[in-house]
Amino acid sequence: MIHTTSRVLASDLRAHLDQTVTVSGWVNALRLQRKMQFVILRDHSGMVQVTHKRDGSPLEAVLESLTPESAVRITGRVVDAAQVKLGGLELVPESVEVLNRAETPLPIDENTGPEHRLDWRFLDVRKRSTAQMVFAAQTTLEQGLREYAMQNGCTEMHTPKLMGTASESGAEVFKLGYFDRSAYLAQSPQFYKQMAVAAGIDRVFEIGPVFRAEPSFTSRHATEFTGVDVELSWIDDVEDVMAFEERMLAHAIAKVAEVHGEAIREVFGIEVVVPEAPFPRITMAEAQEILRAGGWDPEGVKEDLDPEGERAIAAHMKELTGHEFVFITHYPASIRPFYHMRPADRPDLTLSFDLLWKGLEITTGAQREHRSDVLLKQAEEKGMNTEPMQDYMNIFRFGCPPHGGLGAGLGRILMVMLGLDSIREAAFLFRGPNRLTP
Amino acid sequence: MIHTTSRVLASDLRAHLDQTVTVSGWVNALRLQRKMQFVILRDHSGMVQVTHKRDGSPLEAVLESLTPESAVRITGRVVDAAQVKLGGLELVPESVEVLNRAETPLPIDENTGPEHRLDWRFLDVRKRSTAQMVFAAQTTLEQGLREYAMQNGCTEMHTPKLMGTASESGAEVFKLGYFDRSAYLAQSPQFYKQMAVAAGIDRVFEIGPVFRAEPSFTSRHATEFTGVDVELSWIDDVEDVMAFEERMLAHAIAKVAEVHGEAIREVFGIEVVVPEAPFPRITMAEAQEILRAGGWDPEGVKEDLDPEGERAIAAHMKELTGHEFVFITHYPASIRPFYHMRPADRPDLTLSFDLLWKGLEITTGAQREHRSDVLLKQAEEKGMNTEPMQDYMNIFRFGCPPHGGLGAGLGRILMVMLGLDSIREAAFLFRGPNRLTP
Repeated sequence: MIHTTSRVLASDLRAHLDQTVTVSGWVNALRLQRKMQFVILRDHSGMVQVTHKRDGSPLEAVLESLTPESAVRITGRVVDAAQVKLGGLELVPESVEVLNRAETPLPIDENTGPEHRLDWRFLDVRKRSTAQMVFAAQTTLEQGLREYAMQNGCTEMHTPKLMGTASESGAEVFKLGYFDRSAYLAQSPQFYKQMAVAAGIDRVFEIGPVFRAEPSFTSRHATEFTGVDVELSWIDDVEDVMAFEERMLAHAIAKVAEVHGEAIREVFGIEVVVPEAPFPRITMAEAQEILRAGGWDPEGVKEDLDPEGERAIAAHMKELTGHEFVFITHYPASIRPFYHMRPADRPDLTLSFDLLWKGLEITTGAQREHRSDVLLKQAEEKGMNTEPMQDYMNIFRFGCPPHGGLGAGLGRILMVMLGLDSIREAAFLFRGPNRLTP
Repeated sequence: MIHTTSRVLASDLRAHLDQTVTVSGWVNALRLQRKMQFVILRDHSGMVQVTHKRDGSPLEAVLESLTPESAVRITGRVVDAAQVKLGGLELVPESVEVLNRAETPLPIDENTGPEHRLDWRFLDVRKRSTAQMVFAAQTTLEQGLREYAMQNGCTEMHTPKLMGTASESGAEVFKLGYFDRSAYLAQSPQFYKQMAVAAGIDRVFEIGPVFRAEPSFTSRHATEFTGVDVELSWIDDVEDVMAFEERMLAHAIAKVAEVHGEAIREVFGIEVVVPEAPFPRITMAEAQEILRAGGWDPEGVKEDLDPEGERAIAAHMKELTGHEFVFITHYPASIRPFYHMRPADRPDLTLSFDLLWKGLEITTGAQREHRSDVLLKQAEEKGMNTEPMQDYMNIFRFGCPPHGGLGAGLGRILMVMLGLDSIREAAFLFRGPNRLTP
């Protein structure tokens, strides 16, 4: 098959001055005047003005029939035109092919509210360069995370999302029919990445969907989101996990800043600051002391930080250290899962951490308890029945190495990095308790 | 926190001759003799012999208490020992720390059958270097696919696995409770990657789980597997999709051959041949004619190729062209989904393809029908009710560009590349109708 045409992007047109080229894209705007027809054509690289002088030709009729957002292919001559704001050039059309005519009116416009825009997400993303930018930045961010992980000995794994038993807790888990029995959707790759470590995979990296049957309606919760998971074996302590994460993030954010920093500044008005490792660390006890001195939790009853506390301690640490990130360490055992390791001399604490970026929790991590007897005891203390988790408990019976890891939310990282109002803007198609379409 | 020890890998010990180092790994074998104690320690890089002369010390007692597959950390001096087969060196231990003692006996050994080995997959993978190799090769393969995709303008997307309505067909889809309604697990990212194309994402790339509620028990089917998906917009025809795939695969396979070729030859006895683009192409009609001349389908009733036909046509094309790959094109419309585009002059055919590698189907692809009215007609012809698919049908109403794409099975590619008997060996934790654990 011979391809006689090849597409030229709007951003590359200057290199084709006085040549006849074919561009493909959407009708961004139409100005049909008495003597002239102007079409602003948009592709993913930019826009170009198509200028046609009315001449009663079939071409005039085709241009007249266009509608906003129609998909078109236009062949024409690239002409220098200093007066044209879009790159100082225009395209003089020779043929216009309507590949898919958009119905009128469009179902959304600039006044459409956020929920209705989600209904028409494909149009919303197509028309807003900020939305396009999210996925470009996401791609680069992921590449950066992966690059660091692979350079540091990780194997990329794909663990099952279908589980035979509900994992960490029975609550907040989706249940489905599985032939003549039931299955559950994984709330995280936690158990399976630990299984991979026990399988001799030295360092595990996974990016994949995680599912939470949680009726949360906040701007930072979703029922399905993309998790970034790491698990490292043969660690000395949880510090190894934090050191890995801060370096991985610094590497990935540097990559985003390099590739998109300028565009992000322009489009989102936000500066991507490449963080320096190590990130500041503070224990939960210290954090609470500082917060309480500032009036947080006057009843003194909160074990965990609430979003307000997270924002306040992050602001405090920013003031103190100039750093946007902070690790909160040593969470109380009472609010951490049974599999978090505890310091030998402080069974009420865990060797765990959360990582906050500009006050938003983006990661939870910990050293895991790899000793079968201790793990069993910690599960019993939490009143858990380990019987249905036998496959998990088995991995600690035959030489499980010490290990630890982290789980981060890709959408939350993007949200902070780009200053998005809501996690809804960080996913292509958001899923929430009331949102299962489109 | 100060780290006084740092782990040395078994494969790096030669660089530490006459030094005292710490190694971490599993007890691969034990030989406890009257005068000597030998431990073969294994980590993910290789093995080392630990040699201890009995001396009545506490160290002797620790070594005596070891069990196969226990996780240990051993500090000792690296000594040149020409007689030792493992690298001509040994480790003279100063301290041995048992980090996790393995129970005895181990639940599997070399005589354990495949199903029972799946029950203890973590031990099976840990002990077999072939299994470890699968994930190393998978990591490199994915990196290669991604590298090509990103260099060629793809954006990495994560589309939802939770759908509000069953996608392509009601059959073979898992249904789950979703708050007060039902949701379905995506059988592929098909609809959503088309939505991304309609959203102006020029080229879409996704690696993620797909779910098939199919009661298939073959060596090449799973209920959950990792899909590699690509969708390209503004294509001229389906040839653009095939050209993209063959180049992407050639790039990725070359990378695997470069990094692991020698190890794969050694461990699997298989040569990774880097394919040359273009791959041979043959229409379904031609393929069937050739096969029937050879006695396949004597009743002349089969519309599709069965696995036997796939193997036979691949063998034929190999003989003819020397190529391990072949694209079968122009599948009948009757056995393809409604959204595959059909040639203008042959409404009984589709602009689609399957890609076979060594006779196994690893990909299905097609140009998609992007014209709303034609798509609706094709759906109606198939007797489908498009009402529940309104969100999907809507994307063709407002300027959907021409596009096409492909979906490949990562496990199948690995299966062929490494000569694995079953898809069960290509996944870390296989999921099938009877297999939901561990």
